[in-house]
Amino acid sequence: MQQHLDNLTKPIGSLGALEDLALRLAVVQERVPPKIEKRAVYVMAGDHGIVEEGITLYPREVTAQMVVNFLRGGAAVNVLAAKCGFDVFVVDTGVSATLRDKRVLARKVGPGTRNFFREDAMSEEQLERCLDNGRELAAEAVEEGYSLVALGDMGIGNTTTAAALLAGFGFSIDDVVDRGTGIDEATLQHKKWVVSEAVRKHSPFRDMHHLLRSVGGFEFATMVGFIIGLKSKKIPCILDGFPVTAAAFVAWNMDRAVIDYLFAGHLSKVQGHEHVLGRMGLSPIVDFEMRLGEGTGAIIGGHLLSLAAAISAEMASFDSAGVSRSTDIEENY
Amino acid sequence: MQQHLDNLTKPIGSLGALEDLALRLAVVQERVPPKIEKRAVYVMAGDHGIVEEGITLYPREVTAQMVVNFLRGGAAVNVLAAKCGFDVFVVDTGVSATLRDKRVLARKVGPGTRNFFREDAMSEEQLERCLDNGRELAAEAVEEGYSLVALGDMGIGNTTTAAALLAGFGFSIDDVVDRGTGIDEATLQHKKWVVSEAVRKHSPFRDMHHLLRSVGGFEFATMVGFIIGLKSKKIPCILDGFPVTAAAFVAWNMDRAVIDYLFAGHLSKVQGHEHVLGRMGLSPIVDFEMRLGEGTGAIIGGHLLSLAAAISAEMASFDSAGVSRSTDIEENY
Repeated sequence: MQQHLDNLTKPIGSLGALEDLALRLAVVQERVPPKIEKRAVYVMAGDHGIVEEGITLYPREVTAQMVVNFLRGGAAVNVLAAKCGFDVFVVDTGVSATLRDKRVLARKVGPGTRNFFREDAMSEEQLERCLDNGRELAAEAVEEGYSLVALGDMGIGNTTTAAALLAGFGFSIDDVVDRGTGIDEATLQHKKWVVSEAVRKHSPFRDMHHLLRSVGGFEFATMVGFIIGLKSKKIPCILDGFPVTAAAFVAWNMDRAVIDYLFAGHLSKVQGHEHVLGRMGLSPIVDFEMRLGEGTGAIIGGHLLSLAAAISAEMASFDSAGVSRSTDIEENY
Repeated sequence: MQQHLDNLTKPIGSLGALEDLALRLAVVQERVPPKIEKRAVYVMAGDHGIVEEGITLYPREVTAQMVVNFLRGGAAVNVLAAKCGFDVFVVDTGVSATLRDKRVLARKVGPGTRNFFREDAMSEEQLERCLDNGRELAAEAVEEGYSLVALGDMGIGNTTTAAALLAGFGFSIDDVVDRGTGIDEATLQHKKWVVSEAVRKHSPFRDMHHLLRSVGGFEFATMVGFIIGLKSKKIPCILDGFPVTAAAFVAWNMDRAVIDYLFAGHLSKVQGHEHVLGRMGLSPIVDFEMRLGEGTGAIIGGHLLSLAAAISAEMASFDSAGVSRSTDIEENY
């Protein structure tokens, strides 16, 4: 693949990060040049019992309202997906409200998790269903011909759950607890205390299942299964921001081989994202100081990855274009 | 415009740099929300007599060979333009070879500049023709309905010309002389000496015309006229890398008002680009360590600017989507 890139009509290495992306993709796809055809973004939605502890700016109901917004095409993820050629799939992994719209991929395992400050977020059986659902969704994505999948999240309270999962790995509370959608200083301090106390109560964690069941979320467990499922099908997965990357971190701790198939779409402004990306050794494709979720950063990064693949596949080589280092131009006329 | 952005269904400011871009564009276009429709990239090609001094890796003939490659659709700029919805225009401002293809916009003022190490690069009359050509091309772009223009360059030797122009403004030689397409250390030191000596011989520079005529290039002068012409039509111009930005720097020194209409598509890896961008106070949209030219970085940045505009125009507002901070979700069903 490096040889292929070096034969294209440009100075060697002059496309910088785009060449690195094309190279990584060729390795993942085991083909030269790589090729991305159908693309999809999966937005995994779920509610979180932990919101009872007053750690969010928006009420729990906004999760379902935003799912409706996704279905109507009015959210940022819809606009970006349309412009960048991604199909949008919205998965209900456990939104509190009943979502009757048939366009929702119904993988609901409960009406939101339980409050993990007081009890386990979910049962072992619910966890297993989420992991299975994720693997099945990945298999379906592959069957439908998607060669690139962007992964996004929607769930009021999900930065708290992500922080708890990472605190369970020993990340410091200050590094992983964020203001979420814009909470004030007092609420931030309260959120840190809630996460810290919750993790203390549930720990020590015996394994990834114990961690996910104790302080995880339905969409997180589904994303873990999804990421592992995509890896088993050798399909690259573009990560969005902090919650998605926290799920990827859990998946990576269950199966180190997933890392080859993961691309970091962007660096989110959410506190903690850079720490977890760094621990996995992933470099974000762009840094636009976004903090929206929904898969918006994943689509932008995924679109640039697609451009990198297209360039590597469609540019002329020096030979085919008759561009040389020494030939007289007259020969070409 | 800020109010419009804050009413969209997302936490305030959560789209980060994309919101900043949409805001700047709204100011330039004097409309809320901004709108980008037809897009074009103009690749300004020209040859440079200074290559006689042995400061490049590729021979002069490659300029024309690459123009042919652009017309055949085989270059990086073609692939990116096709994927990002930009029409490609190739302008011959002064390529050495005779280009007979009718698709070339023929604005040739000579078969390459003279060697500015030994004499003036061009005559005052040639300079005036270039500036006029640039203004006319800008007017034509607007007449053809383009609302966003990316500006790229092609010309073996053009990083040497760009460095000489900037050295004429007092930028240090070490800051603005680059390895170009990959010259070795000895050639780099020679290139620095050539630029330094040439600028010393021609200076002091009385004004921008004197500078451009002495150590400029046909495509540089055409780009200066083009940038000023786009500004007069209130059309945003996305800059590519070092040569294009050096031309923009000259234009900015002729007319400070151009700055409002300039966007830096990317940060090039070419030595000097960050210095000249910094002096103009422009922040690059992306940094992919690219160093290709042709408008490749301008298209990527321009495409992201288009996405920012689309998001701001097409997302639902909280009211229209029924998303709220406190309403019970049941009301929406």
